[in-house]
Amino acid sequence: MLSFESDYTTGAHKNILNRMQEINLEQQKGYGGDKICESAKEKIRKACECEDAQIQFLVGGTQANAIVTASMLKRYEGVVAARTGHVSVHEAGAIEYTGHKVLEICGHDGKIDAGELSEFLKTFWDDGNHEHMVFPGMVYISHPTEYGTLYSLKELGDISGVCKEYDIPLYLDGARLGYGLASMSADVTLPDIARYCDAFYIGGTKVGALFGEAVVFTKKNMPKYFMTMVKQQGGLLAKGWLLGLQFDTLFTDGLYYEISKNAIDMAELIKNGFQKKGYRFFIDSPTNQQFIIMENERIEQLKSKAAFSFWEKYDESHTVVRFATSWATRREDAEELCRII
Amino acid sequence: MLSFESDYTTGAHKNILNRMQEINLEQQKGYGGDKICESAKEKIRKACECEDAQIQFLVGGTQANAIVTASMLKRYEGVVAARTGHVSVHEAGAIEYTGHKVLEICGHDGKIDAGELSEFLKTFWDDGNHEHMVFPGMVYISHPTEYGTLYSLKELGDISGVCKEYDIPLYLDGARLGYGLASMSADVTLPDIARYCDAFYIGGTKVGALFGEAVVFTKKNMPKYFMTMVKQQGGLLAKGWLLGLQFDTLFTDGLYYEISKNAIDMAELIKNGFQKKGYRFFIDSPTNQQFIIMENERIEQLKSKAAFSFWEKYDESHTVVRFATSWATRREDAEELCRII
Amino acid sequence: MLSFESDYTTGAHKNILNRMQEINLEQQKGYGGDKICESAKEKIRKACECEDAQIQFLVGGTQANAIVTASMLKRYEGVVAARTGHVSVHEAGAIEYTGHKVLEICGHDGKIDAGELSEFLKTFWDDGNHEHMVFPGMVYISHPTEYGTLYSLKELGDISGVCKEYDIPLYLDGARLGYGLASMSADVTLPDIARYCDAFYIGGTKVGALFGEAVVFTKKNMPKYFMTMVKQQGGLLAKGWLLGLQFDTLFTDGLYYEISKNAIDMAELIKNGFQKKGYRFFIDSPTNQQFIIMENERIEQLKSKAAFSFWEKYDESHTVVRFATSWATRREDAEELCRII
Amino acid sequence: MLSFESDYTTGAHKNILNRMQEINLEQQKGYGGDKICESAKEKIRKACECEDAQIQFLVGGTQANAIVTASMLKRYEGVVAARTGHVSVHEAGAIEYTGHKVLEICGHDGKIDAGELSEFLKTFWDDGNHEHMVFPGMVYISHPTEYGTLYSLKELGDISGVCKEYDIPLYLDGARLGYGLASMSADVTLPDIARYCDAFYIGGTKVGALFGEAVVFTKKNMPKYFMTMVKQQGGLLAKGWLLGLQFDTLFTDGLYYEISKNAIDMAELIKNGFQKKGYRFFIDSPTNQQFIIMENERIEQLKSKAAFSFWEKYDESHTVVRFATSWATRREDAEELCRII
Repeated sequence: MLSFESDYTTGAHKNILNRMQEINLEQQKGYGGDKICESAKEKIRKACECEDAQIQFLVGGTQANAIVTASMLKRYEGVVAARTGHVSVHEAGAIEYTGHKVLEICGHDGKIDAGELSEFLKTFWDDGNHEHMVFPGMVYISHPTEYGTLYSLKELGDISGVCKEYDIPLYLDGARLGYGLASMSADVTLPDIARYCDAFYIGGTKVGALFGEAVVFTKKNMPKYFMTMVKQQGGLLAKGWLLGLQFDTLFTDGLYYEISKNAIDMAELIKNGFQKKGYRFFIDSPTNQQFIIMENERIEQLKSKAAFSFWEKYDESHTVVRFATSWATRREDAEELCRII
Repeated sequence: MLSFESDYTTGAHKNILNRMQEINLEQQKGYGGDKICESAKEKIRKACECEDAQIQFLVGGTQANAIVTASMLKRYEGVVAARTGHVSVHEAGAIEYTGHKVLEICGHDGKIDAGELSEFLKTFWDDGNHEHMVFPGMVYISHPTEYGTLYSLKELGDISGVCKEYDIPLYLDGARLGYGLASMSADVTLPDIARYCDAFYIGGTKVGALFGEAVVFTKKNMPKYFMTMVKQQGGLLAKGWLLGLQFDTLFTDGLYYEISKNAIDMAELIKNGFQKKGYRFFIDSPTNQQFIIMENERIEQLKSKAAFSFWEKYDESHTVVRFATSWATRREDAEELCRII
Repeated sequence: MLSFESDYTTGAHKNILNRMQEINLEQQKGYGGDKICESAKEKIRKACECEDAQIQFLVGGTQANAIVTASMLKRYEGVVAARTGHVSVHEAGAIEYTGHKVLEICGHDGKIDAGELSEFLKTFWDDGNHEHMVFPGMVYISHPTEYGTLYSLKELGDISGVCKEYDIPLYLDGARLGYGLASMSADVTLPDIARYCDAFYIGGTKVGALFGEAVVFTKKNMPKYFMTMVKQQGGLLAKGWLLGLQFDTLFTDGLYYEISKNAIDMAELIKNGFQKKGYRFFIDSPTNQQFIIMENERIEQLKSKAAFSFWEKYDESHTVVRFATSWATRREDAEELCRII
Repeated sequence: MLSFESDYTTGAHKNILNRMQEINLEQQKGYGGDKICESAKEKIRKACECEDAQIQFLVGGTQANAIVTASMLKRYEGVVAARTGHVSVHEAGAIEYTGHKVLEICGHDGKIDAGELSEFLKTFWDDGNHEHMVFPGMVYISHPTEYGTLYSLKELGDISGVCKEYDIPLYLDGARLGYGLASMSADVTLPDIARYCDAFYIGGTKVGALFGEAVVFTKKNMPKYFMTMVKQQGGLLAKGWLLGLQFDTLFTDGLYYEISKNAIDMAELIKNGFQKKGYRFFIDSPTNQQFIIMENERIEQLKSKAAFSFWEKYDESHTVVRFATSWATRREDAEELCRII
């Protein structure tokens, strides 16, 4: 069975497992106070061209989103996000569980628009009644988005500008950041993100790690006693060096970019395959997730040979399905997919 | 200065104050365990034609919404509401503060549509991914809505039907319920509401009381230890009889309906006045709130003579403004308003 | 039936009700933005000899405690209180519901000890592990305490000094503050409290008002957007002037002190009565609550003639019972009680 | 440097890492829906002699405690625990963050007493005022406790009996469960725990795994939609099979017991060493944590050669320190420690 179901169906890059073996019985300090974490942080700071960056490794994406949001927001604030954002739809209410509203605005192929954001914030502040409303206290974007799309540098800069104008932080969910950086359409670099965003995370779980996300605060703005809040939300890993080790490995000799490139190459390969066979695309995605509008009958035939995700109903006879590649996707599997579709 | 700013700018019906004077130094049991509360509850049960109704008096509307929602929902559930609903927009995140998401769907003049609700619920349950989403655990409607509109009996019945189909409770916010019941367009009675809704509240604050809302559970479904949860959310009034006394008075000899009728009569009077002068209405409201699209210049002139509310920007030169009548609005003031507009 | 069950079994001082009648149909601004609230605040500032005091009126005590605590604490902080404190025991977890721990330390007749507090704070900060613990972020005391006892000026000053040393605010729950100020043992004045505490509330519900507590921030430290947080926790009264009016009345011509004095006089009267009859006291209370160790048999006989509260089991044959007087207790009733005990 | 600082300073048993290598590139289902998790659950069911056991793997102990507690408790309930319990003191308020109070009772060497628990529950229910209090909704114990002590079978049975009498679940925190089962004083087996407790977790992080705890519900009582609540609290691991693999390995051929035994053997070895040298013990611990009362001067000398934990101040010249062994402690290190103390 070919597997294009998601980008988290295999383990980790071999360098990571090998290194885990090597240091397995070495004594380490707990809770991320070890030297491997320090080394990983330093490498990330360099990759971000952000000397001041403060970094905390966390285990997963929902956890990262919930912890960052609940730690940066004031009690009376919510986080602005696209209606299709991961925090809006697919985190089982993890943000609201911490007492904060997700202030949903329109998304366009998964992205928010700087002009609409500005209008939303202006309306809030102009409303005489705003003391009875949830204050917009942070802006959430994902890059790539849930639909695989990317912000251009200008779009990111504009959103950042609006956030600065209204003095609220911009937070970027980089669950699949590697694939965004490695995309052939990539207009935004890691240093750009570090410059424009107040906080973001570099996704490991979906990009070569067993698990783990590196939360980066770029403006010396890590909330005070952040570690205690991480613990309070159940996100503090006792053996924190396991996270450090993974990011240290991924940020050695450009491994993070290199393996991300494989996912993009394989995505381009199957994209071409679908195009040649005349399939319609639901969205034009330049990253590792490809969304196809497929006849329901065709889906039935295909699903015995390949695993992929059902996204949403399109019309009576068609469904949107997703094919995801990853750092681990093999060329032979991508080619085989092209043959059988 | 004429006052049409809102329906909570004056005290209470005189019968209420007089009775407060009369019993002022009588000894009462605390926390609503007194006989006046019992009497008020019995009168409400009769007015609702719902013998089993369980009733808890609370102080205000946001409190009622937050307490009912947080007590009826399971931890993983949210409340479905129109995007313009009071719980969605104007309660400072009181629902989210209790850990629950407001699942916003489209509103139409403040109302939700049974068909769209059904579609929303169907999509949720059909989504293979729904275990990663917030479960719809209750439906919130307001009647009259935030725009003064009313559900027809058929509309209410249809929504109730959808809720039953998906086995989730229907909750109605009746902050201005009296004005909905007294409207000339009223198609829905208090017994209808008790029959179709699983919980609702009868608004006192805006309809003749100093403060107070009567939360009614209609299906023997008051959550167990509800009083403890009321206390936990800071809503338990020590001198609970003050709430009982007000509702006991309002539900004696049809006073609640009688004084609500005054608001409707005065609203119709000014509605006619605006129509005669050729004003455009933002919405056709059959209750005590009238929304007018007014030229910004005209607003400037008028606001020195009458108080009213700015609702939202309409276009560059016009604004939507709201004129609200109440149980206490004097005919002479309504007539004077008609003259000066 | 004589009533000594609690201090919230009757309505309000007649001046309050009379004034409510007088202004009943006057138009007021909502949510406490009215002139009566302004006047009341000014009078309280004068009574506190604290020109900068920022004041918010709330409806009840649990609400006040939960709102102040949750607004002043940071996310990772808890409130230090005596194990017998109202927030620790009798508020149905209202503090924890907002996500904060009550850090319980020993109480002595309801009071905390400055030395023990200092030790607790020192131990916390000395503990290398404290980042895994709840930070002490505020100190809660009640005055009078739940046992009717009072802090001396020195005790209050010492606690305040410890709080300053550790830079955490001191908050005083004054549900029965009037009775503490009017006590014959009173060593602490309202200006003392304003000077030593960072926040406190002046209780109205139990001291002459229908309902209402005046929260006072004494160091220009009212949390930003406090009103929004009050709304978020369901504590914002639409007709806020009802609270202002009550405190404006209570702080006119020393009424608050005068009526508090009655409760003290009556408490002393029954205290003497119990002493003369040879009853044992559970605690030596100088305020309006008197705790008696009574034989179970005697309780059975007495409770058909007088209402009082069961406090706790003392031993197999005795129970601690509480007799509470109030601003409204009549001398004839207190004298009658003395006769029948 | 000898390391006796804690039991989570090294990686995992080699079988775990080897197996991770082996299956690294196999495709797995996400979120724990894979076959390895199924196999691990089956092995745990057998080890517990509890066919009906429902199991969820989680990443860490604080997370497990917070998720289980917040999912099993009703909104108005709290969890009863020893004042020294991990949830009471060392989880940064993770329980309170979910809105629930930890109802602290006295601990005796880390354990609670069935009689005192019964008295606490009786007093709660007898208190006429209990509707204003936090309901005891679960009992939390740890085994081994934070002080290394163990419950006897009778003690556990008695506590379980009290819980049954009051119809509240008993939950056991088994962060170091292996060491409790392998202790020479062990009176309680895994099937005993499954029989007496309603829920518990088998600790992996401190007992041979990289990370991971296996939460076991023993009475078909896993809360409905538990997975959604795990997600909501940020505890759902995308690559859930990593947890399954670790527990599958630990519960193959008795590995969990075998490696736990090493910690016990090494603890006994150093215990004897300290005894021979005449050190005083703070507590008589039969498990892998040994608490010594040490002269401050001696501590200074020793800490350049061995890592250990400062527990608490004992008196002016002595401190309680902890030496912890683990599954990975080498005999040569334990012997060397005995020499240098």
